[in-house]
Amino acid sequence: MGIENGALYTDFYELTMAQLYFRMGMHERGAQFDYFFRSYPDYGAHQAGYCLTAGMQSVLEWMKSARFGEREVEQLRSQTGRSGEATFSEDFLTWLKANGCFDRLRIEAVAEGRVVHPEEPVAVVTGPLAVAQLLESSMLNHLNYQSLIATKASRIKLAGQNQLTIEFGMRRAQGLAANEGVRGALIGGADFSSNTGMSCALGFPPKGTHAHSMVQAFIATGKGELEAFRAYAKVYPDDCILLVDTIDTLGSGIPNAIRVFEELTRKGHKPVGVRLDSGDLAYLSIQAAKALDQAGFQDVSIVLSNKLDEMVLMQIIRQVREEAPRQGVNPDKLIDRFVYGVGTRLITSRGAGSLDGVYKLVAIEDKGEWAPAIKLSETPAKIINPGYKKVWRLYSGNGLATADCIAMDQENLEQSTKIDLRHPLDFSKSRVVSSEQLSKIERLHEKIWEDGKELGSTGGDIAEIRKRRDKDLESLDTGVKRIVNPHQYHVSLSRKLWKQKRELIATMKGEQEE
Amino acid sequence: MGIENGALYTDFYELTMAQLYFRMGMHERGAQFDYFFRSYPDYGAHQAGYCLTAGMQSVLEWMKSARFGEREVEQLRSQTGRSGEATFSEDFLTWLKANGCFDRLRIEAVAEGRVVHPEEPVAVVTGPLAVAQLLESSMLNHLNYQSLIATKASRIKLAGQNQLTIEFGMRRAQGLAANEGVRGALIGGADFSSNTGMSCALGFPPKGTHAHSMVQAFIATGKGELEAFRAYAKVYPDDCILLVDTIDTLGSGIPNAIRVFEELTRKGHKPVGVRLDSGDLAYLSIQAAKALDQAGFQDVSIVLSNKLDEMVLMQIIRQVREEAPRQGVNPDKLIDRFVYGVGTRLITSRGAGSLDGVYKLVAIEDKGEWAPAIKLSETPAKIINPGYKKVWRLYSGNGLATADCIAMDQENLEQSTKIDLRHPLDFSKSRVVSSEQLSKIERLHEKIWEDGKELGSTGGDIAEIRKRRDKDLESLDTGVKRIVNPHQYHVSLSRKLWKQKRELIATMKGEQEE
Repeated sequence: MGIENGALYTDFYELTMAQLYFRMGMHERGAQFDYFFRSYPDYGAHQAGYCLTAGMQSVLEWMKSARFGEREVEQLRSQTGRSGEATFSEDFLTWLKANGCFDRLRIEAVAEGRVVHPEEPVAVVTGPLAVAQLLESSMLNHLNYQSLIATKASRIKLAGQNQLTIEFGMRRAQGLAANEGVRGALIGGADFSSNTGMSCALGFPPKGTHAHSMVQAFIATGKGELEAFRAYAKVYPDDCILLVDTIDTLGSGIPNAIRVFEELTRKGHKPVGVRLDSGDLAYLSIQAAKALDQAGFQDVSIVLSNKLDEMVLMQIIRQVREEAPRQGVNPDKLIDRFVYGVGTRLITSRGAGSLDGVYKLVAIEDKGEWAPAIKLSETPAKIINPGYKKVWRLYSGNGLATADCIAMDQENLEQSTKIDLRHPLDFSKSRVVSSEQLSKIERLHEKIWEDGKELGSTGGDIAEIRKRRDKDLESLDTGVKRIVNPHQYHVSLSRKLWKQKRELIATMKGEQEE
Repeated sequence: MGIENGALYTDFYELTMAQLYFRMGMHERGAQFDYFFRSYPDYGAHQAGYCLTAGMQSVLEWMKSARFGEREVEQLRSQTGRSGEATFSEDFLTWLKANGCFDRLRIEAVAEGRVVHPEEPVAVVTGPLAVAQLLESSMLNHLNYQSLIATKASRIKLAGQNQLTIEFGMRRAQGLAANEGVRGALIGGADFSSNTGMSCALGFPPKGTHAHSMVQAFIATGKGELEAFRAYAKVYPDDCILLVDTIDTLGSGIPNAIRVFEELTRKGHKPVGVRLDSGDLAYLSIQAAKALDQAGFQDVSIVLSNKLDEMVLMQIIRQVREEAPRQGVNPDKLIDRFVYGVGTRLITSRGAGSLDGVYKLVAIEDKGEWAPAIKLSETPAKIINPGYKKVWRLYSGNGLATADCIAMDQENLEQSTKIDLRHPLDFSKSRVVSSEQLSKIERLHEKIWEDGKELGSTGGDIAEIRKRRDKDLESLDTGVKRIVNPHQYHVSLSRKLWKQKRELIATMKGEQEE
């Protein structure tokens, strides 16, 4: 592991702050930080109404391996300030070598793959102030990105009517995001990826077809598209997917593919599909289906690629529904044979390239008790919810999630007969829900890390994560899952938390006025 | 290095195509691939008029280390197709182990940090077809992302009037893009980064201030913002930059910072700056400057952060120019003390999260000669420029770059008295430039990789790369550098190349009609 991926995978100020805490004797004080995001991804013309949380397993892997060894300490030792003196003192570096690992932290979190919403503490980190501070940058980095991609993948899968979806984005991914993005995509909605190494690392078979270059190589050496297709069919007789747009999709690609499919069939093999990678994909897919149907290949897949995302897929499906019947093609059958190769727009989350997750101090140990911490702001929406908290999900009679409630840790909403839900920002908004109206009240947090060990079933196995995802998406109102202008899911504060927040703000504003 | 970062950091189809070439006896045939992008990043409300190329050094590092060892081959051996049989044959895997490295490739490229434009082959890869094919995904991944970020950083630096700029984006970067993005940012326009490990790896001192959490920790334990600032000043007396918006920027943060600065000054230290991280940064910076000036701190920096990008910086500077004089603050002096902490919007290239670079087969060896390869397309702009090419830059009498010309390899534009420039797509557009009108004709490509060795001065040292960048930006017309609606720089084809392209298209269309 290079120096850039270990314990120094962090913003420099985490280290200078840790030294400050050390110098002031505050470093061992208990502290709590919340990881939460402030708003759903807004893609411009469309917006998310929910997020899927992902990336915690990568955070834990990093925590397990990141250490301040001699190599890291040497780098820090060489840093100097404006005076020319060393930025870090030897006693702090000694402490860092001995204590700069994450074994003394406890993490409670919402399990990967679950639906989460703004303002909710998706993860709560508890431990010595200086150590918890050192986790900030890396945790934010992993959770923000993988959650972003899992959310995008979920939307794409939904918009594409759950057809097989393959992540194709490596070539235009943001550097090594190509790898972590695969994990987010597989968690959120992609079935497979073309990224060979990361697929292998995660235990998935990598997938792919072929590129234009293969056809070009045959053409340039005087052999033509048909011979390129024949070569592909010869080498991969049972996995034959042909890219048909190197010259002219309908004039050359599809007829040549059909000839090769016929040859394959005569040899006892089953052709798999054609891939369309340019032009009007809806129109071309209808024409391709028509030609394939007439030739007796009703079952071969039609793989679509080229700048696909949730909006493009919605539009393609809509156009197919409108146009296919006029061409004598059954639209449902056509959609059923679609496979999507989704590249750039998934792996970079086009339209919203980042999730605005933050890691905020919410409580600190003071005289043996937890003192809630708050941060006012020039921007009101940036005022945090103070203290040690838990998130509860309330399910209405029909089994659908109706609201999430952020409550103080000591509160047990399962035992409440009436739940007083308060708007996190607008103090005038509230509603009361009686427990009789609810089919279930569920606490979302699980303890996932303690004493340097991973606990529970939070991360790891992607099949398990996908089960949680499917369950949560099923219990989400259709309106909330809408691709454009989704219904706003309710996230509330418990009355108790809301009261504490109000009081803290008042105290702080009062102090200012003194 | 994990399995996901080595030779398997590639799309699966590169491997299946390589096997196809092997099976068909085409794998050792000489081939040429061009790396080029099709359009400048379009950020929505604003657009780039030039790009900076970056990332080649990372490609070369990957090429040096990526090998098909036992571990990689084992993964490939275990892949099966729909028939249940192994996808890869043992003879191919044996070939891959022995030949699946990049020592036999030759790369000619435009040096990192230089200005480049759409359609230009920024890199030309020559070598055995199967080997050159295997480079595609990784090369695209590195070049596309780092060029994207270098370009964004250049725009931000320009919009911010060349003030000190620090990359702050790790927390919301796309996973490990946090690291590669630093390299792109430092090449393009950022002076430093807060990313500790990557800064160290590249030989730059990491930079930073402190977070709200530090102030919060003091407040929650009954000590207040002033004491937090005092602690910071005590630990970092010569590097004291204080974040002033935890409670109330003008009501509390700035007055407290001034008190601490006065204390520092009395002790013989020079305070460094304040950081504004929320609210109306233009307004607050003017007010902060006013207060700091009155207290005698005319020199301390004002660090701005929070969602900065080229548009936000342009707007801040405009507002400062308008408003500062009314407040008795000199706008030029205020702008001169600005330092920017640029996070998410730089590291993710907000508005355009990917560069559309591609890697296309342009020529293949056939009977001892290079046969130019072409690809038609349903989308006319996707038709490639065939053959082995070089890029020339033409400078007009005033020393500014006036056009780039893509020519065939054998052409030497330095020896032409008249250069016939043809539009790459629109066959009706052309102009003739006489060499007398030009002050310089420069060939942009250098040979950078051959026989498994790095050649020349392409990559590596960021100080060198920055020199090239500055020179190229200086010779670029101001209109081309405009942040919004930039002037269109001319990229043309030589008459010879244009003729070859026309003929190839005609032949190919003719073949279809047969």
